[in-house]
Amino acid sequence: MNWYTEQWSTECKFSIKYDEKLYSEKTPFQQIDFYKGKEFGTFFTLDGLMMVNEKDEFIYHDMIVHPAFATNPNIKKVLIIGGGDGGTAREVLRYSSVEEVIMAEIDERVFRLCQQYLPITAETVEQDSRMTLLFDDGLNFVKNASDASFDLILVDSTDPISVGEGLFTTAFYEECYRVLNKDGILINQHESPYFAEYAQNMKKAHKKIKDIFPITHVYQYHMPTYPSGHWLFGFASKSYDPIKDIDINKWESFGLKTKYYNTSLHIGAFSLPTYVKEGLDADE
Amino acid sequence: MNWYTEQWSTECKFSIKYDEKLYSEKTPFQQIDFYKGKEFGTFFTLDGLMMVNEKDEFIYHDMIVHPAFATNPNIKKVLIIGGGDGGTAREVLRYSSVEEVIMAEIDERVFRLCQQYLPITAETVEQDSRMTLLFDDGLNFVKNASDASFDLILVDSTDPISVGEGLFTTAFYEECYRVLNKDGILINQHESPYFAEYAQNMKKAHKKIKDIFPITHVYQYHMPTYPSGHWLFGFASKSYDPIKDIDINKWESFGLKTKYYNTSLHIGAFSLPTYVKEGLDADE
Repeated sequence: MNWYTEQWSTECKFSIKYDEKLYSEKTPFQQIDFYKGKEFGTFFTLDGLMMVNEKDEFIYHDMIVHPAFATNPNIKKVLIIGGGDGGTAREVLRYSSVEEVIMAEIDERVFRLCQQYLPITAETVEQDSRMTLLFDDGLNFVKNASDASFDLILVDSTDPISVGEGLFTTAFYEECYRVLNKDGILINQHESPYFAEYAQNMKKAHKKIKDIFPITHVYQYHMPTYPSGHWLFGFASKSYDPIKDIDINKWESFGLKTKYYNTSLHIGAFSLPTYVKEGLDADE
Repeated sequence: MNWYTEQWSTECKFSIKYDEKLYSEKTPFQQIDFYKGKEFGTFFTLDGLMMVNEKDEFIYHDMIVHPAFATNPNIKKVLIIGGGDGGTAREVLRYSSVEEVIMAEIDERVFRLCQQYLPITAETVEQDSRMTLLFDDGLNFVKNASDASFDLILVDSTDPISVGEGLFTTAFYEECYRVLNKDGILINQHESPYFAEYAQNMKKAHKKIKDIFPITHVYQYHMPTYPSGHWLFGFASKSYDPIKDIDINKWESFGLKTKYYNTSLHIGAFSLPTYVKEGLDADE
């Protein structure tokens, strides 16, 4: 019997039975492993942490992409940092109004292996003519990008360890601010409020972003295969407020069928439990 | 090394390290086990399933109790079915406006052991003069109760197996309807949308309740130690709507400090993901 096991904290762990280990590779950046099982289908891990699986990837990818588009339906130029599995790009490319998508993923092997083993996320991305794939460090990319050149930045990163670390720094968020135009929105993978280590990351990221962007919110979603299942994205922007400015009719007019996201959930997702709000408001 | 392990589905499991097994007992109704560890403090299981732990019991108990009181702040007579750990009663008794609470818990040993090992939920309940503790089958109790004798029924049950099974039947929900007064509200433990077995229970319960009550909703919360962390309560009522009728000012005037619940979250919790809504709306 084969079990993939992930420690959610020192004192607890989550395990998934798999039928087959599809592939393993150590790249210059990280350890990549692909598995296949019944409950979650094919899934892959980076440095031993669950990234994407066929059962619930739709939750993460709906929630990283659609709230920004329902807030500003005129988004045309999108930068994705990380997101090597392709799922975030896949959702962005569903908007025919989007003109250009640049994805800066540091590890090309993640994308190539997802093309092979996880077509549900990676299959359609590369062939879209609006798409530019850059296998480059995200922090490096934004440093060299022009001022005010994007409507939306999606930071689809790992936890702030190894390759993900630079994507949780003030220097990175400042560059994001600079390369976003005057209506720009930054969405970032914002960790989780429940287990201590993740909650620390959540607080640190929020404090840094709050010091840079005039409008900052955090929204939540149910992601069962991430530690605690209670996971967050940050919404930071220069002008748009995700609650006041949501354009429900316009978003509905796109006619996108989504399995997790809907405009009612959009509003609800920004209503956080008291202990989460207090954690975000607390000074470190 | 000691690990408590719970299968969340055939193919995955959640494990908690514990330092000490505090107590075990097989009652006529179920197997009861108490453990103590670092991450979750003291916790107990019934028939091998996590019921309550010191780290996140506040989430469950906030969410089973406060949405009903924010919808109808005039609740005075409350019936709790199950809830042997005492946490639900504890939260209800915080409302000084409540005049009478009856708790019908089938297994007295659950309550007595929680008094001993889990004072955080059970300690203050028995001494409150408004409280009547009945160690009786919940279905039996409602069958013999008078018409229109309660403002609120809280079904704080296990899954629909063994002792919890009768609390997921049409016969039980019909009796609940009868013993609720014209403004009565029924809140029930409504399982989870993510893993197939729990999702089936969710659908079945909703279908039965919808056939009996004129107003029915389902609301969600993040409960990390229950399978998938995505858990639900049902809100059924004869006249009050939990969104339209929420009395935010009145609830705030109670001055209750809550760690999870707040009135903004109340509204958000009723906004369900699309796949959950579709599951609830689907005919079995």
